[in-house]
Amino acid sequence: MPQLRKDPIIDRWVIIASERSKRPADYNHSHLPPDGNGTIPEHKDDCPFCYGNEDQTPPEVLAYRDGTPPDTPGWRLRVVPNKYPALQVDGELNRAGMGLYDVMNGVGAHEVIIETPKHNVTLGNLNPKEVESLLWSIKDRMTELRKDSKLMYIMVFKNCGSEAGATLEHPHSQLIATPIIPKRVSEEIIGCETHYKLRERCIYCDIINQELFDQRRIVIETDMFLVIAPFASRFPFEVWMLPKRHIASFRLTSPEEIKDFSWLLREVVRKMDGVLNYPPYNFMLHTSPCQDEELPHYHWHIEFTPKVTKVAGFEWGTGFYINPTPPEEVAEILKNYQ
Amino acid sequence: MPQLRKDPIIDRWVIIASERSKRPADYNHSHLPPDGNGTIPEHKDDCPFCYGNEDQTPPEVLAYRDGTPPDTPGWRLRVVPNKYPALQVDGELNRAGMGLYDVMNGVGAHEVIIETPKHNVTLGNLNPKEVESLLWSIKDRMTELRKDSKLMYIMVFKNCGSEAGATLEHPHSQLIATPIIPKRVSEEIIGCETHYKLRERCIYCDIINQELFDQRRIVIETDMFLVIAPFASRFPFEVWMLPKRHIASFRLTSPEEIKDFSWLLREVVRKMDGVLNYPPYNFMLHTSPCQDEELPHYHWHIEFTPKVTKVAGFEWGTGFYINPTPPEEVAEILKNYQ
Repeated sequence: MPQLRKDPIIDRWVIIASERSKRPADYNHSHLPPDGNGTIPEHKDDCPFCYGNEDQTPPEVLAYRDGTPPDTPGWRLRVVPNKYPALQVDGELNRAGMGLYDVMNGVGAHEVIIETPKHNVTLGNLNPKEVESLLWSIKDRMTELRKDSKLMYIMVFKNCGSEAGATLEHPHSQLIATPIIPKRVSEEIIGCETHYKLRERCIYCDIINQELFDQRRIVIETDMFLVIAPFASRFPFEVWMLPKRHIASFRLTSPEEIKDFSWLLREVVRKMDGVLNYPPYNFMLHTSPCQDEELPHYHWHIEFTPKVTKVAGFEWGTGFYINPTPPEEVAEILKNYQ
Repeated sequence: MPQLRKDPIIDRWVIIASERSKRPADYNHSHLPPDGNGTIPEHKDDCPFCYGNEDQTPPEVLAYRDGTPPDTPGWRLRVVPNKYPALQVDGELNRAGMGLYDVMNGVGAHEVIIETPKHNVTLGNLNPKEVESLLWSIKDRMTELRKDSKLMYIMVFKNCGSEAGATLEHPHSQLIATPIIPKRVSEEIIGCETHYKLRERCIYCDIINQELFDQRRIVIETDMFLVIAPFASRFPFEVWMLPKRHIASFRLTSPEEIKDFSWLLREVVRKMDGVLNYPPYNFMLHTSPCQDEELPHYHWHIEFTPKVTKVAGFEWGTGFYINPTPPEEVAEILKNYQ
């Protein structure tokens, strides 16, 4: 019989439909292996994120480079404003009503983090130093953007593969800073607050303890981090990565933790690429709002979701997910993949 | 400058990014025109929903047929349990806690409405009587299923095209009855209640009035129904269909309204098929919970969303949508398509 499970944070139910159970090989993947098979070159002349094409992006706002001038080759990582931004940096919010409706100007920031000059790699085969640079660039941009008091929240995410919404092949992540706290984030924070009021404990810390005790949903454990297949996973092979220490804001992660986490993130992608044959995926960094970095009830984490099934009418209509692969099976498979 | 707009019911913000504006021809569509070009036949021997293959589905729970025996040809519309159900009819809920987590058995119903014996048609070129039958079958199944007090909510939806999550080509809709009120539905009802407490009016009735006054987002108006491109549309070419009269439950729609609505639903699909070249799409019937059919603050409606863009990390992480095509443009285009 299928099982209904509830996410304890945002009260979202999912259906774990084990009768429809699917193994990794049952999922279709459309994302080509980015290298190793020679079909994608390390450099593409027409890619705006490759060396030599720096003038095809807006001027960089951050780059890690060894003495070369801005917007020229010689960088290891580059952050640039999105050429087609969903939100724009300049302007006033001008919040207004229109009868029943609320509007405001689309003020915010939309940036692209070009993770490496190499066109044909994935997070799973970048060298660990490069993944560490990606994490540092996120911290650096957060530090800079939170100075603008109009920006309430910074969402960092990665779309990999066209099925996951990527329009460019070159390895990159994105960052969108919004002038409001997004709905999904508020829901999480409210759920966390409710738990904290009852128990005086962070619910994510409680989840970490329960999962460490239970063991069945643990994918990777390091000194400082834990990767789990969450109890109420929405999607097959969904995993969450959490620091064991209570840290509300990603920006307050220590250099030692960043180093530990860079190994872990790379390892998760490597296992996913191996088990699901380079699936399209998204990851989303959930962190506390810009001005609330030390919340006792919030705990930063990354939600990593391979895109191997389609979201359909039932999910859109109800906010309820049908997941054919139980997280206990996912943890077992990923843990054992070497 | 992009504009942020808020849905007045569930406080969901969207970004209308007109700088990224896209016209219908910019969207890629993967759903083949189901007929007219001769590539898809009217009958397929290996389709479980075609005439003669009735034994390939579980026994029918409803059929409109002229005197022929159940589970044989001769039907005009057939409702059968899903062969791979996400929820199952028999059993007890057995709600339980597992530490922080909640679980219950996956009790419910999952049925398929086979809309027509013809394999190669769409809702846009079915004859109006057939669309009317589809609507009657939804009412009939709702009347039957609400007798089971374990079932709290019935979600009717359609996935058309593989990009929208359909696994079978033959025209069909689905129905899932759940033992809880789904998150997205509760959010809507709570939003409606809040408005009702303040104004003593249904917010959907208010939206209808405001849109009729404004006119810019109206796609179709009939005596009894309105189709609008909603102010805070999440997706390009999203439209909502609403009865003008205040009706909380779809089940309480009158025969005259069903007739009017069957023309309207067909017309919406015909316009979408024409403008977007047979896009994959979902529609979701939002109606009141089974035991609350006369809520003064809720108003049934159908949300229709073509799947012409990909949902990516930002949307998953924030619940915030980026929509490149303003609803005012969508209304203009759809209204003018003859």
